[in-house]
Amino acid sequence: MADLIARRDALLGAGAPLFYEEPLTIVRGEGVYLFDEGGRRFVDMYNNVPCVGHAHPRVVEAMARQAGTLNVHSRYLHPGVLDYAEKLLDRHHESLTSAVFACTGTEANEVALLMARAATGNRGILCTDSAYHGNSTEVGRLTFARNLPAESEFRSIPFPQTYRPLRPGVSGKELTDLCLDEMRRAIDDFACNGIALAGMLVCPILANEGLPNIPEGFMARAVEVVHEAGGLFIADEVQAGFCRTGRWWGYEKMGFVPDIVTMGKPIGNGMPISAVVASKDLVDTFRRRSRYFNTFASSPLQAAVGSAVLDVIESDGLRRNVVETGAHLRRGLEAFQETCEPMAEVRGHGLFLGVEWVSDRKAKTADVEGVVAVVNRLKGKGFLTSNAGALRNVLKIRPPLCFGREHADAFLDAFGETLRELGHKG
Amino acid sequence: MADLIARRDALLGAGAPLFYEEPLTIVRGEGVYLFDEGGRRFVDMYNNVPCVGHAHPRVVEAMARQAGTLNVHSRYLHPGVLDYAEKLLDRHHESLTSAVFACTGTEANEVALLMARAATGNRGILCTDSAYHGNSTEVGRLTFARNLPAESEFRSIPFPQTYRPLRPGVSGKELTDLCLDEMRRAIDDFACNGIALAGMLVCPILANEGLPNIPEGFMARAVEVVHEAGGLFIADEVQAGFCRTGRWWGYEKMGFVPDIVTMGKPIGNGMPISAVVASKDLVDTFRRRSRYFNTFASSPLQAAVGSAVLDVIESDGLRRNVVETGAHLRRGLEAFQETCEPMAEVRGHGLFLGVEWVSDRKAKTADVEGVVAVVNRLKGKGFLTSNAGALRNVLKIRPPLCFGREHADAFLDAFGETLRELGHKG
Repeated sequence: MADLIARRDALLGAGAPLFYEEPLTIVRGEGVYLFDEGGRRFVDMYNNVPCVGHAHPRVVEAMARQAGTLNVHSRYLHPGVLDYAEKLLDRHHESLTSAVFACTGTEANEVALLMARAATGNRGILCTDSAYHGNSTEVGRLTFARNLPAESEFRSIPFPQTYRPLRPGVSGKELTDLCLDEMRRAIDDFACNGIALAGMLVCPILANEGLPNIPEGFMARAVEVVHEAGGLFIADEVQAGFCRTGRWWGYEKMGFVPDIVTMGKPIGNGMPISAVVASKDLVDTFRRRSRYFNTFASSPLQAAVGSAVLDVIESDGLRRNVVETGAHLRRGLEAFQETCEPMAEVRGHGLFLGVEWVSDRKAKTADVEGVVAVVNRLKGKGFLTSNAGALRNVLKIRPPLCFGREHADAFLDAFGETLRELGHKG
Repeated sequence: MADLIARRDALLGAGAPLFYEEPLTIVRGEGVYLFDEGGRRFVDMYNNVPCVGHAHPRVVEAMARQAGTLNVHSRYLHPGVLDYAEKLLDRHHESLTSAVFACTGTEANEVALLMARAATGNRGILCTDSAYHGNSTEVGRLTFARNLPAESEFRSIPFPQTYRPLRPGVSGKELTDLCLDEMRRAIDDFACNGIALAGMLVCPILANEGLPNIPEGFMARAVEVVHEAGGLFIADEVQAGFCRTGRWWGYEKMGFVPDIVTMGKPIGNGMPISAVVASKDLVDTFRRRSRYFNTFASSPLQAAVGSAVLDVIESDGLRRNVVETGAHLRRGLEAFQETCEPMAEVRGHGLFLGVEWVSDRKAKTADVEGVVAVVNRLKGKGFLTSNAGALRNVLKIRPPLCFGREHADAFLDAFGETLRELGHKG
């Protein structure tokens, strides 16, 4: 392995990110399982991209069949691309009627920013202070967007949460109002610098922020605040979408209707595909202004693979599995939480769960070292998780959607064992 | 077809770009051929992405085999990704030793800009005034970068060419010096606005500019000017790379060594892959500063497909075919050019040829309508080409690399027929 790491440092540059204290060499995947070079099996509880399972035969077959028939850019007509757009749009709110395809989540969010700015004629973009929406220069400006200069076209608000509220002791509707006030303040600050609001871009479940419980009704009211200021509300469904939460979309789960939705990661089970959906008016305006073209996107290959993923989610009953297995797994974690001091909060939706890890429940002291120890021990026991969140102290559990009750039970056993080994009451 | 177009306007938005006066519905590809829904066969003389041929069985097989085995992100170790990086780097100049993978040409150019800026600590980017390097907000600023405000971090120079030189009648080394002066002027203008040079980004063969003949030695001397100003020279090989010119890279063909190279389009024969190569120092600095991660990139799937493409280029002898068939096709076009008034210049490299189309050779009046008529007639005869260039008046011929002598001969017959139909001396 030292050899592989040295080769990797030489060929890909030092510092290309790697998981785990002792990195894994993964050579095969099947369903919820990943296998290392020695044939050891791991239950994948991290990867949302292979949403219908690693190496799903129907997705692989659709890919091979289409690649062996035609894969070409979108300046010719092809019914497959239209059938896929229709199928994807059918699963969305009725106000979202047209689609733009791209290849990565970054590219989808680039399109969303261009679209919001083209439609409003404004430049200002609002986000949270602990977000990540992609790696390009412009979308990268949304990454942990703090201490921005006055002339910046971005502003952030402290991400809404009930666990560490904006003002100690405040909760309920009062906290919601405080959070909305932060938005209004940011919009005013834009105005003072001559910048009008183009839109707000957020993940509906605030995944990178750490899956916080959100003050009640915040998202729907945030949409109103954005609309009042002349902006558009953009939901980044790159993590929340495709049944991850037990609903098709995070915005359904959180009870609001966005103007623009971006999708990525699980959309192609690993094939680079991303998409943006919005009203036809918004998409038309975007097309007219940008003449957007993406060589690899809207291709017959993207369409065939994306379409197969939608079919498998439905035929394999994965949404129902997310609801049922997710609830079962959550109950198991909550049982540990009652007695295990560092597990301050079990949160999340469907098969995307987070555990806030602290060294002191009262002081709410984030314990990154503690959660990293758990993650590495779980890996040793054959379960792949990670840590995430604004403070990196949240245990992140996000398995493929085909993760079943038997995997949850095996995980809960290993989790209890881990807690006991670390000296916690498990 | 009207049905398909209406559906497309509804689902993908009005104005998603389409080729030809009467668009084509393409449903199958094989080698250099594309087939429409009625089974009609076209010789593809436009598509550079399927470089080893449409639906190449070895590429499809590599894709299916890897997708059926493992396709996962790059935070686990995987030897396939390293083998591919090595194989790709082996084909580059020895100073280019490390690679960053992404999914699209846009993303590769985003990485290149971030890398040049991270390494130099400077912000200014120089390009030509008729370039296209991608569709993101930042890289999009390079698109026909003209009339930029003083505070812009971009400047452009009139693209170097011998056909419409900067000053009438000037040629040879004198013209080269004039073009280099334009660069120095732009760099000075940056300096006057407190912006230091981070780099210059150009396509080595100026493909979007219209494949002009370039003043002799310009590229190598441009590298010197950029280095003297403290910047890095970035070659966008998205169109020029992978043997398109008869050499592996456009920079070899044009006789210079860039600091950073970006690749895309043909790299995966249609699978979304892109790459950036540079010295290990540059890549390390980029990794350290950006913690760059791209979900779909550096994956076993990208590696397997990219690797198969490199293998097929070599085992099918495609570079040699490019040199030989390209020269044959060019000679055929040059023969028409002698007597056909609108064909002012036949240019290009290998299997990427351009014909400057004018209504008046003396006045050099660009004839867009004329070249569009040729393109549409050629389509009617079963040959797919397009028009391109800064003035859109260049006939663009860029077939898959497996385009053979027999296809060239058939095309030349159809081309002659087209010229005669349009009343030119063919």
